[in-house]
Amino acid sequence: MNTQCPSRDFIYQDWILTETKFNPEQLHSRGTVFTIGNGYLGTRGSLEEGHARGVPATFIHGVYDDVPVVYTELANCPDWLPLMIVINGDRFRMDEGEVLQYERRLDVSQGLLSRSLRWRSPSGKIIDIHFERFASLADQHILGQRCQLTPHDSDCTIEIQASINGYAENQGFNHWEGLDQGKTNQGVWLQSRTRGSQIEIGMAAKMTISGAEATLQVSIVPGYPTISASFVATSQQTITVEKLVTVFTSREINQPVTAAQEKLAQLSDYTTLLTANKQAWDEVWQKSDIHIEGDPTAAFAVRYNLFQLLIAAPFHDDKVSIPAKTLSGFGYRGHVFWDTEIFILPCFTFTQPAIAKNLLTYRYHTINGARRKANHYGFKGAMYAWESADTGDEVTPRWALPDDYYGEDVRIWCRDREIHNSADIAYAVWQYWQVTGDDEWMRDYGAEILLDAAIFWSSRVEYNKQGDRYEIRGVIGADEYHEFVHNNSFTNRMVQWHLEKAVKVYDWLGRNFPEQARKLEDKLELTSELERRWQDIIKKICLFYDSSTGLIEQFEGFFQLKDINLQDYEPRQRSMQTILGIEEANQYQVLKQPDVLMLLYLMRPSAEFPYNEKALATNWNYYAPRTDITYGSSLGPAIHAILAADLGKSTTAYERFIQALMVDLEDRRGNANDGIHGASAGGIWQAVIFGFGGIQLTEQGPIANPHLPPTWTSLKFQLHWRGHWYQFDLSREGTGDRGLGTGDRRQELIISPPSPPSPPTPPSPPTPDIRGFIFDLDGVLTDTAEYHYQAWQKLADEEGIPFNRQANEALRGVSRRASLMLIIGDRTYSEAQIEEMMERKNRYYVELIQHITSQDLLPGAIALLNELRQAGIKIAIGSGSKNAKTVIERLGIADKVDAIVDGYSVQKPKPAPDLFLYAAHQLGLQPQQCVVVEDAKAGVEAAKAGGMWAIGLGPVERVGAADIVLPSLAGVTWAELRTKFPQTAKR
Amino acid sequence: MNTQCPSRDFIYQDWILTETKFNPEQLHSRGTVFTIGNGYLGTRGSLEEGHARGVPATFIHGVYDDVPVVYTELANCPDWLPLMIVINGDRFRMDEGEVLQYERRLDVSQGLLSRSLRWRSPSGKIIDIHFERFASLADQHILGQRCQLTPHDSDCTIEIQASINGYAENQGFNHWEGLDQGKTNQGVWLQSRTRGSQIEIGMAAKMTISGAEATLQVSIVPGYPTISASFVATSQQTITVEKLVTVFTSREINQPVTAAQEKLAQLSDYTTLLTANKQAWDEVWQKSDIHIEGDPTAAFAVRYNLFQLLIAAPFHDDKVSIPAKTLSGFGYRGHVFWDTEIFILPCFTFTQPAIAKNLLTYRYHTINGARRKANHYGFKGAMYAWESADTGDEVTPRWALPDDYYGEDVRIWCRDREIHNSADIAYAVWQYWQVTGDDEWMRDYGAEILLDAAIFWSSRVEYNKQGDRYEIRGVIGADEYHEFVHNNSFTNRMVQWHLEKAVKVYDWLGRNFPEQARKLEDKLELTSELERRWQDIIKKICLFYDSSTGLIEQFEGFFQLKDINLQDYEPRQRSMQTILGIEEANQYQVLKQPDVLMLLYLMRPSAEFPYNEKALATNWNYYAPRTDITYGSSLGPAIHAILAADLGKSTTAYERFIQALMVDLEDRRGNANDGIHGASAGGIWQAVIFGFGGIQLTEQGPIANPHLPPTWTSLKFQLHWRGHWYQFDLSREGTGDRGLGTGDRRQELIISPPSPPSPPTPPSPPTPDIRGFIFDLDGVLTDTAEYHYQAWQKLADEEGIPFNRQANEALRGVSRRASLMLIIGDRTYSEAQIEEMMERKNRYYVELIQHITSQDLLPGAIALLNELRQAGIKIAIGSGSKNAKTVIERLGIADKVDAIVDGYSVQKPKPAPDLFLYAAHQLGLQPQQCVVVEDAKAGVEAAKAGGMWAIGLGPVERVGAADIVLPSLAGVTWAELRTKFPQTAKR
Repeated sequence: MNTQCPSRDFIYQDWILTETKFNPEQLHSRGTVFTIGNGYLGTRGSLEEGHARGVPATFIHGVYDDVPVVYTELANCPDWLPLMIVINGDRFRMDEGEVLQYERRLDVSQGLLSRSLRWRSPSGKIIDIHFERFASLADQHILGQRCQLTPHDSDCTIEIQASINGYAENQGFNHWEGLDQGKTNQGVWLQSRTRGSQIEIGMAAKMTISGAEATLQVSIVPGYPTISASFVATSQQTITVEKLVTVFTSREINQPVTAAQEKLAQLSDYTTLLTANKQAWDEVWQKSDIHIEGDPTAAFAVRYNLFQLLIAAPFHDDKVSIPAKTLSGFGYRGHVFWDTEIFILPCFTFTQPAIAKNLLTYRYHTINGARRKANHYGFKGAMYAWESADTGDEVTPRWALPDDYYGEDVRIWCRDREIHNSADIAYAVWQYWQVTGDDEWMRDYGAEILLDAAIFWSSRVEYNKQGDRYEIRGVIGADEYHEFVHNNSFTNRMVQWHLEKAVKVYDWLGRNFPEQARKLEDKLELTSELERRWQDIIKKICLFYDSSTGLIEQFEGFFQLKDINLQDYEPRQRSMQTILGIEEANQYQVLKQPDVLMLLYLMRPSAEFPYNEKALATNWNYYAPRTDITYGSSLGPAIHAILAADLGKSTTAYERFIQALMVDLEDRRGNANDGIHGASAGGIWQAVIFGFGGIQLTEQGPIANPHLPPTWTSLKFQLHWRGHWYQFDLSREGTGDRGLGTGDRRQELIISPPSPPSPPTPPSPPTPDIRGFIFDLDGVLTDTAEYHYQAWQKLADEEGIPFNRQANEALRGVSRRASLMLIIGDRTYSEAQIEEMMERKNRYYVELIQHITSQDLLPGAIALLNELRQAGIKIAIGSGSKNAKTVIERLGIADKVDAIVDGYSVQKPKPAPDLFLYAAHQLGLQPQQCVVVEDAKAGVEAAKAGGMWAIGLGPVERVGAADIVLPSLAGVTWAELRTKFPQTAKR
Repeated sequence: MNTQCPSRDFIYQDWILTETKFNPEQLHSRGTVFTIGNGYLGTRGSLEEGHARGVPATFIHGVYDDVPVVYTELANCPDWLPLMIVINGDRFRMDEGEVLQYERRLDVSQGLLSRSLRWRSPSGKIIDIHFERFASLADQHILGQRCQLTPHDSDCTIEIQASINGYAENQGFNHWEGLDQGKTNQGVWLQSRTRGSQIEIGMAAKMTISGAEATLQVSIVPGYPTISASFVATSQQTITVEKLVTVFTSREINQPVTAAQEKLAQLSDYTTLLTANKQAWDEVWQKSDIHIEGDPTAAFAVRYNLFQLLIAAPFHDDKVSIPAKTLSGFGYRGHVFWDTEIFILPCFTFTQPAIAKNLLTYRYHTINGARRKANHYGFKGAMYAWESADTGDEVTPRWALPDDYYGEDVRIWCRDREIHNSADIAYAVWQYWQVTGDDEWMRDYGAEILLDAAIFWSSRVEYNKQGDRYEIRGVIGADEYHEFVHNNSFTNRMVQWHLEKAVKVYDWLGRNFPEQARKLEDKLELTSELERRWQDIIKKICLFYDSSTGLIEQFEGFFQLKDINLQDYEPRQRSMQTILGIEEANQYQVLKQPDVLMLLYLMRPSAEFPYNEKALATNWNYYAPRTDITYGSSLGPAIHAILAADLGKSTTAYERFIQALMVDLEDRRGNANDGIHGASAGGIWQAVIFGFGGIQLTEQGPIANPHLPPTWTSLKFQLHWRGHWYQFDLSREGTGDRGLGTGDRRQELIISPPSPPSPPTPPSPPTPDIRGFIFDLDGVLTDTAEYHYQAWQKLADEEGIPFNRQANEALRGVSRRASLMLIIGDRTYSEAQIEEMMERKNRYYVELIQHITSQDLLPGAIALLNELRQAGIKIAIGSGSKNAKTVIERLGIADKVDAIVDGYSVQKPKPAPDLFLYAAHQLGLQPQQCVVVEDAKAGVEAAKAGGMWAIGLGPVERVGAADIVLPSLAGVTWAELRTKFPQTAKR
């Protein structure tokens, strides 16, 4: 399917965005639009060859560094893109020579950005150039680039320079100090460190050229390591240049530059890596895709918005969150707002709960920052930062400083007054828990967030004796046009709601996990007195609600402000605050974004106070016309779309939806250059699912009550709810009624499958509920068995004991002491001698494993680990070895593993189940949710003894007791594996 | 002479500083100490090969760019130093391999920085490496580097990379956007532009290698143009690498990158350029040197401080001034304070008046900024910025923002309250005028500064009706520990003094230059009423002066503050403000720096109120013990040294002197890394001349009343005063009394020569008072005569008129029309035909001169122009050609010329004197102060007819009427030339 936007240069296809014209005026906004990434990093769509006005940018999650005024920002990381092409002495660049054909494509199905052009050089050579790039979703540390060159009409000499540019900058500021750089036989590497936060980055790159004779040279220009090559290209023959880059930071690993070098050394070729990336994306889209028919622009654009959220989503990191402008631009400096929890999170909670968990756990890891903020302002508990970064401390700038010499400083009050986000975070914690049923996370993380933020509220509210009521004075509500108000209804009701939930969670914890409840009571100074205070606040917090009409006053005195008719200001292209001025906007009944309506939206799923249909209609009629929905906040339109859909206002709903949907693709607000509007993208998902899909959550699961836009003939998506997947295929009855303008008429739709839901396609229940894999190390992931054998052999030789490979077979999965016993047999040694021999063997072994690299991983291991992680399955290593941690570090898989259980962890060795039971516990799983992968008899026995599934690697005579027996991990995939488990769950 | 500081690694010789040990801990402070420059730029002493913690920096005068919080800063310009050396694969660096021998030397007699070392590479090669660098004082756009390499014990392969690094940064911020770069057959070039201020820079570099076979290669790495070469070096043989760099900015020339390329193309070799640089320095030191005997450390260190001021001094630019940290560091962002006028300027006023004039004229060019500041604060006239940069607008930051999340912002009040500098600037204007007698400058520039700042004061003072007095409330005085005081004595008396002088200048202007007086009356709204108000303020401004004791209260209520005994806080290494806190320091009688004593110091030369010997002693005894002279302001010690010398407190005087003298060399305040303490360096000159030399200015000239420190056996220097040079050679009688500790005993010294002064050695009066040179263009500076000839020849050929080179000789110095008349002789043409032929010839000529470059300058021209400029002699071009401006631009000498008078300027051609008279007028000189250089008879006649000196170039039969006849300018120097003029002045 295919659509051409009138008067624009974009073509939208199902999964593909095509730009047909290069316009340097749009360089920066398109730089945002063509951002790619993999949840670890985001790279803006800048040009490989550079551009005089270009601002290349790559942001890596969590790599913040100090900066004046705004405290900290995501550092623009060294640029991995530079690829310079010189054709017969002319450097290829878009602003010289002549571009004869041009096309840029972003394929969101696999995160692949490409550019094809035919270029005539200033000296007249015509050449076809095709660029591609991707950031691998299969391995987040791998970046791939390809460039194909085809001279059109005559041979020419081509020089290629592939570089890492260490001079990346944040609007002029370069956060990086170069530490070192160099060449390897594989290519070049760069080691840099942020100036303030001292985060180290290691990058390595290599280039291969096929189709021409080329010798590579390496240059040592400081900060700009470069591989170059010159060759002759024959007319009409294509030369392919592949550049592969690896990147690590000290956030994941101790020696990032070594990790980058080692990973680079073992990389497959571009095509293989791209295939792995595509497979990883297929998995993700199976869950997250939304399929729309009848509206090709929306069909693509919804996927585009989801893509932009997915590439900014931390798949493997729970210490970061998604910034307001994702990882795609400099706007808001990479700071995290309520945008994440309220606007972005639901998309993940319902389709990628592992990511949602990471995002929320970020708030747990940053709770001490929230406590410092509360303490600074003289309050208790956790007062979450309005803008948050690595530590959770408040990083909202105090000032908007003027550029001109005598301009006034403008004080930004959000850090002090926009406090509702502590309740918003609690809302998201609660929602995640309700949707996933993840009690363990609630016990270990969520409860502490929710309760300590509740403690903040009890110190923040003020008791008004005269009115016998609690008040929250001097705040900014969701609507930021009013900067100092008392008893904002959104804030007050969210606080009340938060305290209601705090009481429930505290009770739940005490009943189900009394030990954890006691821990938190001690840590947070939770008392029953405090709980009573919460109850009192819940009862007496003031809310300005007219029960006869349902009308809510936005804050105390709002209705006394000057009224406004926004129509009087049309046409306009500026916000009402810009038009009226900050002071004046405070005096009017004009909203930047939904406030009372936002509250109603959040209370709608549970139909809690003050939500009801009448209240929604009344407040919509009052507030919607007074909201600066066009140029106020980009957070507004998607929410208005949903509420309008609820109210049957389908024209308005669709208008608002498109406004949010195209905010970046069509640069509707003129600031796409600052980065993707993440909250708007998250709002899009909610608008489709909750607005047009009309999804409501019942105890029996989600049900649909759709209001599809008139042109939509079908809407398909799937949701994950309390451990099950629900697939929705909503389609309009017949195809006659496609016109717009049918107004508020309630649409008749066939819901297929009708509620209750049928099982979705991926993953297919009722396979056993497998959530964790425990891998033995030796003989399974790596052949350290070989090193053990060599060490034992050396010891045996020294002691004159007969020993060989065959004898060694008996030692698989056997502890060190037991192995030695088997070797010495009935020979007599004192305990001291035995101790010494064990120590000696271990010394030999430790020496040997120093040379382990990721090349020692057995075939298939890395692919399976990656696939399992993508699938959200937890991974532990369960090894009897006391050197397991060293081996895992050396293998370079430490970041793929959630827990390591080794010889130090338990007393009884395999075949006792202790080791694996401990591993399951570490993963937070039940034994029957775990699969053990073993190559030893004792190991398989241990697994079975522990009540786990077992996969045995090796001959049946050794591992035949396992549920599944395989020769090795080579070619093994989880997709296939899970179909082999018995169809009856164990529980 | 030679001295070794105990426990330090510096050796001080007469002109040479030697560092004997490399200590990476001192990298940054030594980076400041080893700054070189040429008054156009300053380059910090960073290492050619780079260093992980290195911060290379080159600042060019006036190249400011926008930056948050502090508005603007001097942009660190692209680094011209990078020179990488790879020896058998090992990159030379100080932090790897082994440094076997090391020495770094700065020769301040010629601004040459060198470094010699013997290095063992990690792989064991031993090599001697010698680096040199200088920024040419003979041509400010030329930078030279040399590197000599001598393998010690075996042959090795060496790779050299010479680069320009376009990624220079200001503490992380890179102000430059790369525009373009490329290679020429000479080397590489780079074109960049500042982001905000849009100043363009063009740099070009070339490298030559002698002593080995090497082919140069050029790399196109973006922003880092690089020339590289590989060669084999033979053991014990020296290979010399020379790197020459040219630099221009759009502040001087329209197309800086073209200018840099062209200049690079015509450069002589390193040795020739270094010689020219040395000659230029010799000239400067002839005037500015201070020669001390008996105290080798002081002997060198005084020269060192002068050197640091000279390299920051704008020899050729009157739109810039010397920043507080000169051009040597990032401290204070290149902003200009009162430091320049009060501390630094006297050194120039008395030894390099042309530079002093430039510095003060900067305040004229920035007066509109001062007017905007006054207007912003609701005042009239010119309120000079406390911190000033390119526009004169106030650029003092408003805030010291905290690094930590919850720290308090500290408001910096200097922009609002430290207002005394408008009077300080007036003081410097007056002093310059008094010392130089430069009435023209006072008329055209100084008067407007002084009068408009006086107008500011009359709007700033407040009339206190009750006391019938004027007050200045709410200020910060010279002492910045007190941030909000009323009637600061320093400020109030300086304002009174300023208004006294304003009245005088206004009267003087009216009497001597009534036209200029009327112009200023119109422009500034000067009225006699205003003058009466000034008189009233002078009479009634309040000053807290006890006439019985001479004690002055620093401000209203100072004596009521808590007293302090600074001894109670010893030992300490922090300022009293840091110890007490900002608020608390305000409550104590503790001074950051002299305030009342500063006032007495400034009133001392003229012995004006409140200065007298008794008042000095009284106030010294009160304020000196209460001044934080060690860790307060670096502006204090030199002033205290002078006053202590006055009071006969020689031990204190010398202590304070050394404290100022060694502030950077010994990093006494721990902040040398921020840049040279410019005010302290300027204070050193004043301490030597006015303190130890005891110079007093009388109507008969300066006289000495020396108080030499005990160890000093001789002190020699020279001063320029009212058009004459005075040389001082002060020596102690006998040599017995050298010990310190003789206390306050007045020293008996022989003053030789005694007052009145004898003529100084350079320059030697009474040569005629020559202040300007007017050069004919054709045949004198360039051979455009040849192009004229070619154009005439072509025309003549087309017209069939006989013409040849011999006939052309008759056209020298003849106008276009007259030339044509000579050519056509008695042939008959209509006026229309004549017009057409003139136009045609000119077209041919204009076409021809498009190809002129600086290579078309005749031998000796550029050297003489440079020498004249160094000597402060003004330069005009007086050419009958109507294309003179184009030719001068193409020759690249536009920036050396003060005025161009061409065929458009006057009606009557040579031999009428009009053209040269007009040129003299443009230079602001009398005819008898000018020398005309001509190659034509008519030109020499014109010069003589105008009453000017004439130098004729060519045969006596042509130019014999000139005062001096020379074959050409080749080898001609001003030093020699001036001795040839008749010994009787014309006036």
